[in-house]
Amino acid sequence: MKIIIKNCSMITMIKPDDVYRTGQIEIMDDKIVYAGTVRETDESFDREIDAKGMTALPGLINCHTHSAMSLMRGYGDDVALMKWLQERIWPIEEGLTAQDVYWGALLSIAEMLKSGTTAFADMYFFMDEVAKAADEAGIRADLSFGMVSTNDDWKERMDNCSRFYRQWNGGGDGRISVSLGPHAPYTCSPDFLRMVEELAGELGAKIHIHLAETLDEIDQIRERYGKTPLEYVKEAGILRHKVIGAHCVHLADNDMDIMKAGGVNAVHNPQSNMKLASGIAPVQKMLGLGINVALGTDSSCSNNNLDMISEMRSAALLQKVGCMDAEALPAVKVIEMATVNGARTLGIEHEVGMLKEGMKADLILVDMNKPHLYPQHDLISNVVYSAGGGDVAYTLVDGKILLDEGRLTGIDEERLYYEVDNSLKRLFNRQGR
Amino acid sequence: MKIIIKNCSMITMIKPDDVYRTGQIEIMDDKIVYAGTVRETDESFDREIDAKGMTALPGLINCHTHSAMSLMRGYGDDVALMKWLQERIWPIEEGLTAQDVYWGALLSIAEMLKSGTTAFADMYFFMDEVAKAADEAGIRADLSFGMVSTNDDWKERMDNCSRFYRQWNGGGDGRISVSLGPHAPYTCSPDFLRMVEELAGELGAKIHIHLAETLDEIDQIRERYGKTPLEYVKEAGILRHKVIGAHCVHLADNDMDIMKAGGVNAVHNPQSNMKLASGIAPVQKMLGLGINVALGTDSSCSNNNLDMISEMRSAALLQKVGCMDAEALPAVKVIEMATVNGARTLGIEHEVGMLKEGMKADLILVDMNKPHLYPQHDLISNVVYSAGGGDVAYTLVDGKILLDEGRLTGIDEERLYYEVDNSLKRLFNRQGR
Repeated sequence: MKIIIKNCSMITMIKPDDVYRTGQIEIMDDKIVYAGTVRETDESFDREIDAKGMTALPGLINCHTHSAMSLMRGYGDDVALMKWLQERIWPIEEGLTAQDVYWGALLSIAEMLKSGTTAFADMYFFMDEVAKAADEAGIRADLSFGMVSTNDDWKERMDNCSRFYRQWNGGGDGRISVSLGPHAPYTCSPDFLRMVEELAGELGAKIHIHLAETLDEIDQIRERYGKTPLEYVKEAGILRHKVIGAHCVHLADNDMDIMKAGGVNAVHNPQSNMKLASGIAPVQKMLGLGINVALGTDSSCSNNNLDMISEMRSAALLQKVGCMDAEALPAVKVIEMATVNGARTLGIEHEVGMLKEGMKADLILVDMNKPHLYPQHDLISNVVYSAGGGDVAYTLVDGKILLDEGRLTGIDEERLYYEVDNSLKRLFNRQGR
Repeated sequence: MKIIIKNCSMITMIKPDDVYRTGQIEIMDDKIVYAGTVRETDESFDREIDAKGMTALPGLINCHTHSAMSLMRGYGDDVALMKWLQERIWPIEEGLTAQDVYWGALLSIAEMLKSGTTAFADMYFFMDEVAKAADEAGIRADLSFGMVSTNDDWKERMDNCSRFYRQWNGGGDGRISVSLGPHAPYTCSPDFLRMVEELAGELGAKIHIHLAETLDEIDQIRERYGKTPLEYVKEAGILRHKVIGAHCVHLADNDMDIMKAGGVNAVHNPQSNMKLASGIAPVQKMLGLGINVALGTDSSCSNNNLDMISEMRSAALLQKVGCMDAEALPAVKVIEMATVNGARTLGIEHEVGMLKEGMKADLILVDMNKPHLYPQHDLISNVVYSAGGGDVAYTLVDGKILLDEGRLTGIDEERLYYEVDNSLKRLFNRQGR
């Protein structure tokens, strides 16, 4: 399919501040074939989008979430972490079926497409269902089974991960990739981590892991192993592979040196870190050291949405007050985190993250024809500081229009709510809405 | 006009957690005449709103903003405060005309109505224009001329404030009230504050003032007067009157005692405090002491929008990470800040802030039929943690539907942008959009 987007303003992300007041994008099949100033063309297109007053930018990349947990959105907020897990989340998770995870993940995918996210990194269980949902919905995804070492079925877990990797890595026309997901330093023993590390080597897989999220974790790992979480995973060999390190909140200087040397990709989740009172990650400092820092929402339970635009704003604002420096983490850096750095984190920086000829057509159009986005002295500022996920009008992945003037083209929302309600009725033994 | 809203869920705010899964609201002229469970009625209504899947709550009250500054939205972000003021804002403000302020204020009013704000407290100059805009648009407003003591035209300023008070206080069918606006402790000398205090006594007016916003201010006031900002304004007599105290970020224990004893209403502006790296206000502590704390956005320059739903979320999240306590400032408290506490701050708590029989019909409907607001385990959580201003479908003030299925009924948006563009062209000597 050939698509032309006319008269949009553009934030290309090819370099910082590469902004067009009036631009044009041409797409053939899954690729951007032109992104630049307005030009005449003799080509005929299957679809023409008049994007006057809209701003095009690369699709946003959510590098850490647990998509199926949207089923528990708002279920037990404002309580301490352990109480919330023990009394709320775990009892529900025990009852979750593959079917529930499918619909929960699809609910999140619907939300992500509507708010401008074109790729996400997910860790949970029943991941085949998430792969199926992502495949059908057309979104890009990096998927991992979350694993802990408390049970002794290590061998089966590794076998399952191998099977999942071989079945789904490169699936969905190349939109789906698979990582290994050892949950966190405090839930994975050294031997277990070494087993995961070996498998990663065999498969050539990335490793998605929670790292240094809370002070409790720092204390626990110090007590058990006399190390920081970063020192601990390094020693287990994890950093020999490409690592998606979620959170990275509490870091000593030496930890950042380890991250830099090991090429760890940090995923900042500001709203989750605030809501769970985890702390303020040293994003400005990590970026200064040349560590790649991407952005994520964490699950809808600790956020409580998957709106990456709102997450960008939170990242910038939190870093400023955290550093007591109004110049810390400017808008252009945070939009980099959500696009270019996210692509690098998932190892797809040559394919997505910029509006650039030859790249995959993963892009969004933000409708600026609204009082809260007017005037437009600075398009990047408006997107990061003034917009919200609800302002996204078009979302394209792999050259397919998945959100068209605010309407999902590939997901039946009524059916989705109906199926989610069925899951909720069983899980919560009551009406969903 | 008689309006019935059917099948909505409701957050009444009559008491915490007073939530209806299915409710009904009946409005006659400017008042709520019924808000409760679904009931049959023989009355005939001029308008019936089927609000299935929507949540009704009291209109949000933005207790601190500078509405006309939306003209400068995004103009010079990510720079330090003094540089921003001196190189960006002040040069533009010097060129502002009454006409500019009218259109800038109306742009903000359009945004506020679209995102569920039904009342706002504003401080700026050319305030007659803001009054005119608020009057015509139908929103509720508390208005004050911002005043500093650096010029020596004190007498004229006081005369102008008296004139403005007499002309507009109680105007717009009672929707408009007037306060006095001495800018801040660091811009107003003791003698000047005493003069304002006297005038407040004469008129019976409230005083809207910035208080203890930055560490710089604390240092300056300490250096000049050997006092904290709260001690300083108390000594000038300011606290004899009803005070709208914007920011209140840096407070000693004694300052909070002064606030409590003097009945100071603190207005928390979390996004502005983050963006300008001002600091984290002790909201949880103030509320614990029984100080009334409301919520505001500050201007679109330091925010950069006027979305009170997003501001509620930021308030809750920032307080949690600030206190390192996930239970700090729960959603129900923050929604109180944006409604009931806001009404108390403006002295209109008997008229607005709850969905309650006999109160003014200032209310909003949030459309929950969206993936990011699904499921609805907890309506208050969904509004505060998951929603955004763009999810507001209906906004009513004084029983008038000012936002109707997302469309402004009383403001011509195309004309608005046209006029804003004209102002921008002159002010910035270039195209606005």
